[in-house]
Amino acid sequence: MEFTARQIASFLNGEIEGDPEIKVNNVSKIEEGRPGSLSFLANLKYEKYIYETASSIVLVNRSFQPEKSISATLIKVENAYEAFAKLLDLYQQSVPEKEGISSLSSIHPTAHIGDKVFIGEFTCVAQNSSIGNGSKIYPQVYIGDNVKIGENTILYPGVKIYQDCIIGSNCIIHSGVVIGSDGFGFAPQEGSEYKKIPQIGNVVIEDDVELGSNTTIDRATMGSTIIRKGVKLDNLIQIAHNVEIGENTVIAAQAGISGSTKIGRNCLIAGQAGLTGHLNIADEVKIGAQAGIAHDHKIKGEIIGGSPAVEIRRYRKAAVIFKQLPELREEILKLIREVDSLKSKLNPSD
Amino acid sequence: MEFTARQIASFLNGEIEGDPEIKVNNVSKIEEGRPGSLSFLANLKYEKYIYETASSIVLVNRSFQPEKSISATLIKVENAYEAFAKLLDLYQQSVPEKEGISSLSSIHPTAHIGDKVFIGEFTCVAQNSSIGNGSKIYPQVYIGDNVKIGENTILYPGVKIYQDCIIGSNCIIHSGVVIGSDGFGFAPQEGSEYKKIPQIGNVVIEDDVELGSNTTIDRATMGSTIIRKGVKLDNLIQIAHNVEIGENTVIAAQAGISGSTKIGRNCLIAGQAGLTGHLNIADEVKIGAQAGIAHDHKIKGEIIGGSPAVEIRRYRKAAVIFKQLPELREEILKLIREVDSLKSKLNPSD
Amino acid sequence: MEFTARQIASFLNGEIEGDPEIKVNNVSKIEEGRPGSLSFLANLKYEKYIYETASSIVLVNRSFQPEKSISATLIKVENAYEAFAKLLDLYQQSVPEKEGISSLSSIHPTAHIGDKVFIGEFTCVAQNSSIGNGSKIYPQVYIGDNVKIGENTILYPGVKIYQDCIIGSNCIIHSGVVIGSDGFGFAPQEGSEYKKIPQIGNVVIEDDVELGSNTTIDRATMGSTIIRKGVKLDNLIQIAHNVEIGENTVIAAQAGISGSTKIGRNCLIAGQAGLTGHLNIADEVKIGAQAGIAHDHKIKGEIIGGSPAVEIRRYRKAAVIFKQLPELREEILKLIREVDSLKSKLNPSD
Repeated sequence: MEFTARQIASFLNGEIEGDPEIKVNNVSKIEEGRPGSLSFLANLKYEKYIYETASSIVLVNRSFQPEKSISATLIKVENAYEAFAKLLDLYQQSVPEKEGISSLSSIHPTAHIGDKVFIGEFTCVAQNSSIGNGSKIYPQVYIGDNVKIGENTILYPGVKIYQDCIIGSNCIIHSGVVIGSDGFGFAPQEGSEYKKIPQIGNVVIEDDVELGSNTTIDRATMGSTIIRKGVKLDNLIQIAHNVEIGENTVIAAQAGISGSTKIGRNCLIAGQAGLTGHLNIADEVKIGAQAGIAHDHKIKGEIIGGSPAVEIRRYRKAAVIFKQLPELREEILKLIREVDSLKSKLNPSD
Repeated sequence: MEFTARQIASFLNGEIEGDPEIKVNNVSKIEEGRPGSLSFLANLKYEKYIYETASSIVLVNRSFQPEKSISATLIKVENAYEAFAKLLDLYQQSVPEKEGISSLSSIHPTAHIGDKVFIGEFTCVAQNSSIGNGSKIYPQVYIGDNVKIGENTILYPGVKIYQDCIIGSNCIIHSGVVIGSDGFGFAPQEGSEYKKIPQIGNVVIEDDVELGSNTTIDRATMGSTIIRKGVKLDNLIQIAHNVEIGENTVIAAQAGISGSTKIGRNCLIAGQAGLTGHLNIADEVKIGAQAGIAHDHKIKGEIIGGSPAVEIRRYRKAAVIFKQLPELREEILKLIREVDSLKSKLNPSD
Repeated sequence: MEFTARQIASFLNGEIEGDPEIKVNNVSKIEEGRPGSLSFLANLKYEKYIYETASSIVLVNRSFQPEKSISATLIKVENAYEAFAKLLDLYQQSVPEKEGISSLSSIHPTAHIGDKVFIGEFTCVAQNSSIGNGSKIYPQVYIGDNVKIGENTILYPGVKIYQDCIIGSNCIIHSGVVIGSDGFGFAPQEGSEYKKIPQIGNVVIEDDVELGSNTTIDRATMGSTIIRKGVKLDNLIQIAHNVEIGENTVIAAQAGISGSTKIGRNCLIAGQAGLTGHLNIADEVKIGAQAGIAHDHKIKGEIIGGSPAVEIRRYRKAAVIFKQLPELREEILKLIREVDSLKSKLNPSD
């Protein structure tokens, strides 16, 4: 698809400086622009690029005053970043939507499929499951028995959902995500073997959740592992059985949450952090990258880091001194010598 | 399915206090019970919930003496937890089993499929592979050339097994597990490129092993990567080429074992721990969460933690002092000032 | 397949000591050899095994002088390890190649499939995508719209590639890899919700790249996430949006690289290391296992470790002292007592 500067300016209520008929067919960063690209300049840190860019059109703030000549056509708007985001949304909506139910999928006769649902090739929908209106199930997805999926949810290729799990509306679940595999529970036996504890709960994922690729969420032993509304999980995250993650909490890649831990709302957990089991983490707590959490953190909004984790400023100070430990040790050895020398002067007979 | 208190008490040799005709159709934790739920009370820490629970039936120890009135029907048994586990097993066995071979699967004519095997839709079974009696292969699984799978093993949707690998009996392998991908071996070349070292070994998984979702186990360069009988691996674990994991060892999520490392029997490795290559770890060693192991640990039953890892009590003491490093540094600076002051008093001419 | 010592010696220009007609049909480590196995001895650390091995043929260096009698037939060559690697390559080439396009795959009519391409069962090739000559696409792979794949590239079972991504020639991509899932970008809204930032870029993977199983590579927000020529990634690695990894860089399992970070050429990143976003790492930098990198490292060839990471020798010294912190603290407490005692002697009235 192609758009002229005139069409874009009209959509954004912007003002054109340059050629109103120039056309763009893709978007790019201003420093990577080529003829046919649309870019934007919001942060003046990047101003130098606007004088060099090969982009055909650049969105700028109305307040922007160029210091040199610019070859691109400008469209001046109130807020260039927001206008650009608006165009991205429009662009995404313009991508033709997948629709229809592939004759190469396998849908159990007892399954209930809503209106305007897309189901791709080699996807399995097992018995008594249901898929809400407008949801898009890409190829090679597995939807187990009695699974319920809400409306306008997207399951990308290869997602696997075990029996009895519940997924909300407007969720986005990326390739390779596994939902509802057995929790890791084994009872030690006499001798040295383990006996599997049956995992008969499920996973409940509320609305507006996004799950990154190859993330795993285990079913509860009993009851539900729960991912609340608006939670965003990055790739390769482990969520163990009976965990509960509060609304709008965001977790970065490769973090892991052990069994029965409960995370509050609006928390931020950075990459590769790990939490042991049966913890309670208050709302709005922030956890640093690679942190190791082994205790409850009940102070709303606390920021913690390190492994084992402590309040972040204490962690940062300690980490700085850690690096200086060789020098600190030298100081201590020197002190020991000096104190010995002082002692012998005061007590020459010792 | 529904059961009456009378039926359950009869199965468990228990004694009813309350309504023998009351029915349950699901199980739940005592604190989450609803009408129709069966719960149990074993640990008296949770006693308060039995006076509030809405569960219809609660299993309790024969020794339990309530302090208040209880609305649920009680079934008194010798050991409430074991009785409950017995019911869970029964419940799981009552779930109708998947059976039959889907006409939408692809099975090579040279493959050997045992009796009472389930093979789901879009699963591939390649040439010369064999699947033992009673095994269940869910949809979208890939079983490569010359793979052997034992009896009563479950492969959940999307498991991928490369050629020549061997899986035992009574194993459970969760979705997204990859078995037999190439070990990570490259020989540096002149210039700065790498040449792939062919990985011509395989993976051998013995009986009674459970592998969590999206775990990866690489094939050996030569010989076999070996997972011994009774091993339990959680989700997202990395097992590199030529590793051997001893019987009944349990490893938690996101841990990683590098090439050619050998782990003993009955070890416990906690989440996100990492072991470098070519190590030997003795039997019954316990490794803490996020630990980093770079040396052999040859003492049976040793408990280690930290990165680099040391004996756990030493690690814990050092970790406590780490947090206090800012104060400790202040003490040292104060000592330096005091010693300087003492020196100048003793040697005023300095 | 079977080969005689005579055939192998002739291929390698080697010299036989023993039975030229003895046959082998597999390769093994010298310490695990059985009749019918071919082994090699390069490192004299393993010399003792050559006197015990049951292998039928052993490749040795021409310079090797046995100290005892050896039952295996020897083939003497200039460099036993290289000769063995050459045979492994030959062995791999002798495995019959997968070919043909399965009638159980789904290939969009607009897709372009080159010559001698293999496409396995239940693989999807979506519209306008193209696959170069000689590439092998195993079963259950998903190739999205407008994806381009070069020549002689292997995609193992279950690889998922989202729309618009580009894969080079001679790449090997293992099972469960996800390429092109959305970058993790969300704009905080008023209230406490997040709005998804559209991710309209792609992933570009150049030639000669190998990606380990279940590794995830997110598409760029705009522009491209780029994996340069010759890069080797192990299993379960996270590559976030807009990352660039330089030529011939090697990254071990479970490492994670956050958004927009740029890694130089010929770097080595060990297992479970993590890098935060927007960093620049110079060429040939080496990063230790479990390291945490939060700052630019601009010195070519620098070796760093720890979390937060510092120059590796400093890290190692500090880590040694960390273990001794309990004793160091005792020394400090002792010093405080001694200084107090000295002070009171000098100032008895205090």
